[in-house]
Amino acid sequence: MAITVDTARTLDEADPLARFRDRFVIDDPALVYLDGNSLGRLSLDAREAVTATVAAWGGELIRAWDGWLDLPERVGDRIAEVCLGVHPGEVVVADSTTVNLYRLAVAALDARPGRRVIVTDRANFPTDRYVLEGIAAARDLEIRWIETDPIEGVQPGDVARAFEAGRPDEVALVTLSAVDYRSAAMADVGAITALAHEAGALALWDLSHAVGSVPLDLERDGVDLAVGCTYKYLNGGPGAPAFLYVRRELQDELRNPIQGWFGQRDQFEMGPTYDPAPGIRRWLVGTPPILGVAGVAAGVELVAEAGIDAIRAKAVALTTLAVERFDAWLAPHGFSLGSPRNASRRGAHVTVRRADARALTSALIAHGVVPDFRAPDGIRLGLSPLTTRFADVEAGLDRLRRLAASVSTSSVST
Amino acid sequence: MAITVDTARTLDEADPLARFRDRFVIDDPALVYLDGNSLGRLSLDAREAVTATVAAWGGELIRAWDGWLDLPERVGDRIAEVCLGVHPGEVVVADSTTVNLYRLAVAALDARPGRRVIVTDRANFPTDRYVLEGIAAARDLEIRWIETDPIEGVQPGDVARAFEAGRPDEVALVTLSAVDYRSAAMADVGAITALAHEAGALALWDLSHAVGSVPLDLERDGVDLAVGCTYKYLNGGPGAPAFLYVRRELQDELRNPIQGWFGQRDQFEMGPTYDPAPGIRRWLVGTPPILGVAGVAAGVELVAEAGIDAIRAKAVALTTLAVERFDAWLAPHGFSLGSPRNASRRGAHVTVRRADARALTSALIAHGVVPDFRAPDGIRLGLSPLTTRFADVEAGLDRLRRLAASVSTSSVST
Repeated sequence: MAITVDTARTLDEADPLARFRDRFVIDDPALVYLDGNSLGRLSLDAREAVTATVAAWGGELIRAWDGWLDLPERVGDRIAEVCLGVHPGEVVVADSTTVNLYRLAVAALDARPGRRVIVTDRANFPTDRYVLEGIAAARDLEIRWIETDPIEGVQPGDVARAFEAGRPDEVALVTLSAVDYRSAAMADVGAITALAHEAGALALWDLSHAVGSVPLDLERDGVDLAVGCTYKYLNGGPGAPAFLYVRRELQDELRNPIQGWFGQRDQFEMGPTYDPAPGIRRWLVGTPPILGVAGVAAGVELVAEAGIDAIRAKAVALTTLAVERFDAWLAPHGFSLGSPRNASRRGAHVTVRRADARALTSALIAHGVVPDFRAPDGIRLGLSPLTTRFADVEAGLDRLRRLAASVSTSSVST
Repeated sequence: MAITVDTARTLDEADPLARFRDRFVIDDPALVYLDGNSLGRLSLDAREAVTATVAAWGGELIRAWDGWLDLPERVGDRIAEVCLGVHPGEVVVADSTTVNLYRLAVAALDARPGRRVIVTDRANFPTDRYVLEGIAAARDLEIRWIETDPIEGVQPGDVARAFEAGRPDEVALVTLSAVDYRSAAMADVGAITALAHEAGALALWDLSHAVGSVPLDLERDGVDLAVGCTYKYLNGGPGAPAFLYVRRELQDELRNPIQGWFGQRDQFEMGPTYDPAPGIRRWLVGTPPILGVAGVAAGVELVAEAGIDAIRAKAVALTTLAVERFDAWLAPHGFSLGSPRNASRRGAHVTVRRADARALTSALIAHGVVPDFRAPDGIRLGLSPLTTRFADVEAGLDRLRRLAASVSTSSVST
């Protein structure tokens, strides 16, 4: 798909999702917000959901828990159906992505006793790497780090080679991100999961930069375990709780290493020993953060209303426009593209790279364009389809072009 | 202290904290809410704090994180000073009580290699017991369960006997609740911690039912580690994040088993290996739930404004009135007192027991009195000093007396 004739305005006029921007709070219409993949915008529905939840707290007090006790499962069911291609009862909203990754990784390792290798990607998101490091140190395991192409991301061949670097039956767990947080490269979830299974390992996917922007089909892909973030494309709010997925057939086999009262069968009987609830509920731990869950619930429904396929189509168009403008406007100023050129291999953000990216990012923000800096040299443009206009892409890259052009004669720092 | 002449009204008129009730949302003035220790009421300040946080999300978007990144530490500092008797830099707001208990228990066990016994109380709060069971199973450790008096709670002698049941240097960790969730019995934190230290073990306290209602002095008592809940007497909101305390001298020695990016030094450099931040920050894991933290911040300031000593004095007076009314009104109907008679050994709730407590609790709620049922036979009356009037105690126990009296001729179930 090439965008050569249409202007951004024409694309916005033809955009079937354009109306969704009106469902969000836009305090500053002039702001070019290209960071919906770090913190998604506040929807009117999320604001109303949080306000209603606070009102229920004040008015119903403890009695409001009658409607909250199964909320993490109900919202999980919606994420399952709307975003992940799996079934109700396989997803629950809980804790943070990091805590969930820890729990599922430990559970997977416990389920593969005697295997002492974890395979992951050297370029994986920091929290994923750090949590795995901690687990490996505690259990005296080996992490087999895959070195990946920084733009194209992890390939099935990389994973196959990691298995071949030792005995395949040493590997307990393969854990990777479905969409790379820097490059937006999309992994082949199905092919890599199949490789893991061939060796008898389990596959745990971090969906944080994919969920709500890329259609996922965890059932088709045979995925065992997954975690993901809700404050990016699901617009759940700052620090909104994460979700986790455990394939139904594994739910009884795996053990949650953090046994909490919200995962207990007959929780309020407060019985003498831990007796995990049936199904996905056993993956709850402590009291769920209800204000946060309310925001997530609202966010998922907006994705449902728009439809994940329409969201994906717009993400492809937005990132394609960004790459076109990159070629025309930024490449001549010494930028390199930090994301795949093939749109089918790219999530909903685009990274452009230049050595002075940190200073350029500060300058962009001072000029009303908000992207993310990603060390060492990346400016990451998050193009969240429900709220980003094609005109935002154009305005943001135009501003960057002007700043970059001025840098030879003056400092871009602000 | 005995209340024999004053009526509840007189006590309310003389109550120096009475004005704090006006700082809370009271939708139904007729409701007798005796469950502020399960879910504390919504304060006007907390509502405003959450509303302002939602507005900052919508308006400032990712830039609001400049003010949020250190919020878990700043609110932790206030909890440290206002409620716990420890210093800034020793407390942080994070995750749930259960997740924090897990992390600190694992860290403590790692710091006492070769010792394979955990000492705790058979009557400890369920999530504490469940999380310890899980850890013990995973690490092949022994839990030495203390059998305690159901009313007077755990005594130093109980702990001493637990040590004497084997070799004292087998014990790695003693973990107990400072205030019992059923009886409100207060443990002697200092004496029990000293016993742990004599044997070379670490002491980890769950402060959930104490914090914000009982003055704590963890420094004086030499406490190593603690966790606690913010949605009870701190009125932080449903599922608001918990806190954890790590004594400063232990902060570098202990290792957080869940290594996340929010505990990383230079977090946004996203470096190749985990390098924990200095101080208490390394005990953060994933992205903090900001809406919840905002509620906690507001709640702690109300406690600070009222003063923990004034709160404690009122808690003593409230529970003393409850015991007086119990003796006069409930004992004759076959109830027993499930809490210590000595006010200095009692937190801010009172439990009354009768075999039909479950049905009586339902009947109370149907009549506008909201306590908690605690299996098998307890009605728990939470008397949160900032929001509970002496008249509430009187009205609640009067209603219970009438329901209990009627039960011989008709069912109390509703």
